Amino acid sequence: VFKNDQPHSFVWPVRVYYEDTDAGGVVFYANYLKFMERARTEWLRSVGLDQGRLRAEAGRLFVVRHAALDFRAPARLDDHLEVTVDIARVGGASLEFEQRIRRAGTDADCCRGRVKVACVCAETMRPKSLPNELLAEIADVR
Amino acid sequence: VFKNDQPHSFVWPVRVYYEDTDAGGVVFYANYLKFMERARTEWLRSVGLDQGRLRAEAGRLFVVRHAALDFRAPARLDDHLEVTVDIARVGGASLEFEQRIRRAGTDADCCRGRVKVACVCAETMRPKSLPNELLAEIADVR
Amino acid sequence: VFKNDQPHSFVWPVRVYYEDTDAGGVVFYANYLKFMERARTEWLRSVGLDQGRLRAEAGRLFVVRHAALDFRAPARLDDHLEVTVDIARVGGASLEFEQRIRRAGTDADCCRGRVKVACVCAETMRPKSLPNELLAEIADVR
Amino acid sequence: VFKNDQPHSFVWPVRVYYEDTDAGGVVFYANYLKFMERARTEWLRSVGLDQGRLRAEAGRLFVVRHAALDFRAPARLDDHLEVTVDIARVGGASLEFEQRIRRAGTDADCCRGRVKVACVCAETMRPKSLPNELLAEIADVR
Repeated sequence: VFKNDQPHSFVWPVRVYYEDTDAGGVVFYANYLKFMERARTEWLRSVGLDQGRLRAEAGRLFVVRHAALDFRAPARLDDHLEVTVDIARVGGASLEFEQRIRRAGTDADCCRGRVKVACVCAETMRPKSLPNELLAEIADVR
Repeated sequence: VFKNDQPHSFVWPVRVYYEDTDAGGVVFYANYLKFMERARTEWLRSVGLDQGRLRAEAGRLFVVRHAALDFRAPARLDDHLEVTVDIARVGGASLEFEQRIRRAGTDADCCRGRVKVACVCAETMRPKSLPNELLAEIADVR
Repeated sequence: VFKNDQPHSFVWPVRVYYEDTDAGGVVFYANYLKFMERARTEWLRSVGLDQGRLRAEAGRLFVVRHAALDFRAPARLDDHLEVTVDIARVGGASLEFEQRIRRAGTDADCCRGRVKVACVCAETMRPKSLPNELLAEIADVR
Repeated sequence: VFKNDQPHSFVWPVRVYYEDTDAGGVVFYANYLKFMERARTEWLRSVGLDQGRLRAEAGRLFVVRHAALDFRAPARLDDHLEVTVDIARVGGASLEFEQRIRRAGTDADCCRGRVKVACVCAETMRPKSLPNELLAEIADVR
């Protein structure tokens, strides 16, 4: 499902509602982080990983360690956005994603981000190896 | 598309992400208002009404005047919810909706709400008659 | 500190930031529920009740069961709001609050709400009697 | 009021409520961006700049162009946080801030961020010089 070259990025659609906007008339910038997480979550789900179950059954939690965002052009109410997910780097207990948010059918990015997510033990919050389903999935990406 | 008896309610799916939850481990109650608005917005869109365009072209705005919510059972991370939209009452410049939020495939409501929305002039904020597309759509509901 | 007649309401100040607004140029209506909770939380704290500690030490949780809101006039960016807290009804394991949100120094309410909060066991989610500190505090209100 | 060396950072207090947390039991990471904006907004206000007025009177808007965040340790419900504001770089039409969020009275940062804010024309969204009040204020920082 997932390859690391752009044409094959995982893509998740997001619609912009009033709740996402601010008095500037555009999407409130912090909300792009939410949109990116929705896309990563759905990519995980497409690989067979449900975060709630991962926590309950394997005691593993994904936590965001670092995020760098470029806000390039404002998205607006009713916009139909596409959020991409690409793996930029695989660590022992972490993944680094490259993500873009653009209006559907266009090439112009509203926002670009780099997000580093760590896999930790839900109890101790110590780093824990990535789940096997994930390692299998991203084998060809490394 | 839309009839006022329950089996024909407009239904919109909503997935629960971390952004929607709180430290109680469940969906933060104020967020059910967001889910209900997403469903009303998509119902409007299904009728041909885009709120952004409605504002730009017809100078009309929908504003929420009243909301009453019963929080019945908590929804949780990863839950796949269904949000229903039913028209409870049609006024000259307002609509009253009855909405329910339940886990997909179940009958147990997480939240039930009654939301009154007024149609106003975007400039003066004074009441303005409902758009014709809407009146046509709900003619058989009255 | 707290009496049930209006002049003695508990009052909590809230400043409106971009995060609170939407593309309509005003406070997003669901956020008034957040402002009301901030005020209830600070009222509880003023009585000596910290919700985190209440949960850890007494296994008690407050959950919102019902909320009815009237949105009367929009609040805007940079507004300095006052949120009031009054007890409307005391039950065995619940409290009903009457709350108003107004621009500081004015009498005109932006939003009025009635919020019913239940005290439950954090494990079983079953009703549990109100904490003693709270009962002592509201003795003169009943 | 504001100097660029750490002991003199502008500091703004933020209390953590349920609305700020997620099902992981901690502050939802995107919300640190909100906390940082509250602090920047209050720093601007302390300098005499109200963003709503700045827009209405001078047609100027501040928009966030870039943000890089390190999430170092989770903040939790009821935590009393301190958010610092320091100017890292002054451009012709932009400012770069260095911000930290820590539990009050401790040295351990929950989150560190670098946020670049541009001053733009509210109409054209083109870069516009920083307001004079601001330039005067930060003269000694450059």
